[in-house]
Amino acid sequence: MNKNRGNGSIVFSKPINIIGTGSIAGHKEAEGPLAKYFDKTTQDALYGQDSFEKAERQLFLEAVKMALKSANLKETDFLVGGDLLNQIISAGFASRELGLPFIGIYGACSTMAESLILGSILVDGGFARDVVCATSSHFATAERQFRFPLELGTPPTPTSQHTVTGSGSAVLSNVDSGIGITCATIGKIVDLGITDANNMGAAMAPAAAQTILTHIQNMAIPPNYYDAIFTGDLGSLGSEILIDLAKKCGTDISDVHQDCGVLIFSGMEEMKCGGSGCGCGASTLCGYIIKEMQKGNFKRILFVATGALHSPTSIQQGESIPGIAHAVEITKE
Amino acid sequence: MNKNRGNGSIVFSKPINIIGTGSIAGHKEAEGPLAKYFDKTTQDALYGQDSFEKAERQLFLEAVKMALKSANLKETDFLVGGDLLNQIISAGFASRELGLPFIGIYGACSTMAESLILGSILVDGGFARDVVCATSSHFATAERQFRFPLELGTPPTPTSQHTVTGSGSAVLSNVDSGIGITCATIGKIVDLGITDANNMGAAMAPAAAQTILTHIQNMAIPPNYYDAIFTGDLGSLGSEILIDLAKKCGTDISDVHQDCGVLIFSGMEEMKCGGSGCGCGASTLCGYIIKEMQKGNFKRILFVATGALHSPTSIQQGESIPGIAHAVEITKE
Repeated sequence: MNKNRGNGSIVFSKPINIIGTGSIAGHKEAEGPLAKYFDKTTQDALYGQDSFEKAERQLFLEAVKMALKSANLKETDFLVGGDLLNQIISAGFASRELGLPFIGIYGACSTMAESLILGSILVDGGFARDVVCATSSHFATAERQFRFPLELGTPPTPTSQHTVTGSGSAVLSNVDSGIGITCATIGKIVDLGITDANNMGAAMAPAAAQTILTHIQNMAIPPNYYDAIFTGDLGSLGSEILIDLAKKCGTDISDVHQDCGVLIFSGMEEMKCGGSGCGCGASTLCGYIIKEMQKGNFKRILFVATGALHSPTSIQQGESIPGIAHAVEITKE
Repeated sequence: MNKNRGNGSIVFSKPINIIGTGSIAGHKEAEGPLAKYFDKTTQDALYGQDSFEKAERQLFLEAVKMALKSANLKETDFLVGGDLLNQIISAGFASRELGLPFIGIYGACSTMAESLILGSILVDGGFARDVVCATSSHFATAERQFRFPLELGTPPTPTSQHTVTGSGSAVLSNVDSGIGITCATIGKIVDLGITDANNMGAAMAPAAAQTILTHIQNMAIPPNYYDAIFTGDLGSLGSEILIDLAKKCGTDISDVHQDCGVLIFSGMEEMKCGGSGCGCGASTLCGYIIKEMQKGNFKRILFVATGALHSPTSIQQGESIPGIAHAVEITKE
């Protein structure tokens, strides 16, 4: 059976079930409107550890453990995950504790979608009965690595986004749960020349536009086929750019588009353009979106996580920021 | 059909064919015994670029283009790849040029095996007709990122390995080529407490031992089922440790074990324990091993690429080095 629809789009032979989720978030996220959806929130940015990096891996580890518990499983055949930190140390060290066969990935903030796609491929292809997918981010580790250490007190620029401290994890399985992943589109790199590491939404919006338009074209569906198209972390500026770019290509997604980065810090002006980081889309998906699907408030959604594949080194060498977006369709029976 | 054999081992429904390869290496590698096997070698560490990072991505790009050309393809359904650099910028920027749907992975020096496994899963599962897999490394970019910038002139320690400047790429397809990937084992993290970033072989050897022993146990085969078991880059010290560890578990692999890091710099004493880096296993596999298989000199091999999932930050924070190894069986009809 050919499950490839061309241009990165794939269709699963049957829905790959989401049988468990876990979500955890930090104190800023706990002040936002999605607070009640997270399985756990913490007031402590160090989460009882002696470094922010160790705190982040603990968030990753706990999200996975919560997802396994909610799926009534002690382990899965594979763990597919990654994070923003150099050499994906959050996922790697968490995986050391978990002891599962580990497929490490790097998709920057697109990681949650990438892990769900690979997990679904493993289950659909008969390579796994169940797979746990996860990613995380942390405001303090991301600032230290990508921008300035917090100790400097650098004020955020107007276009900046605040990296979400949090993690999300989902268990995929061939056991029916009523909520499943049905098709997906793996994105290509899109780079329109943004060089400002404090304007990630603008750098990633063109990739989101390309992947969404490719997906709906390949699947021969209109945008309002979905109750909502959730981008991962474009923020408010990136979201505007996405809607403009899609309109210029003749597709209006303004009625159905929502952004996890906008949702998670909605009404919190100090967060500038909103949330970002792998943990933003992951915790919003595994906290808010899937729970609302379970209640029947969304029947069919497209989760489009976007990533910026730059490094501080590439920025210093004058390179622009390549963006990528992967799309995952999730439906409720 | 259940293709999972437990503990990370999977079996493909039929061999996933390797229909094209590309390999490129630097000037030190061109002085070694495998020089004649590489499709291209270069004397210029900058490879005509203005930074080592840009040189590395050019090596990645050219290896992929050579693999596509040797497969008589202009493109493939997906590119699966990654590299050692922060945010896998070599793979990301090369992917920007290639314009293929991109699955970014991070497995440190285990990347080539990981990409071959994921590529085979995509083809076997019916998600792709063809996939190109690739990885790269560069001595100067790796030293700058993981140890000391070359400008410091830091002498290598006795246990150190020299990161290979090079790249390897392979095209997988469901079109018969006579050489194919038949089964694989995805590894778990193993960490026995090594904290010296100049002793990577010792850090990765326990993971190699665990994955090899798991693989032969799950597949119910003796080690000499293989003409050779090639580890990616344990180097001479790591290879000794691997053989000792396997012996302690009751399995003697000394007759069939070879190491790409030892092979690539064999007889070059200044390279200390041998070669390392994603490009070491990748260029040796796509240059030497597969070409020798085509000639019939190996009929069945196990390629076991090992990765060290530490970062400079985790080392500075006193963490030990977690290792991982993925094994891929390649057979000639």
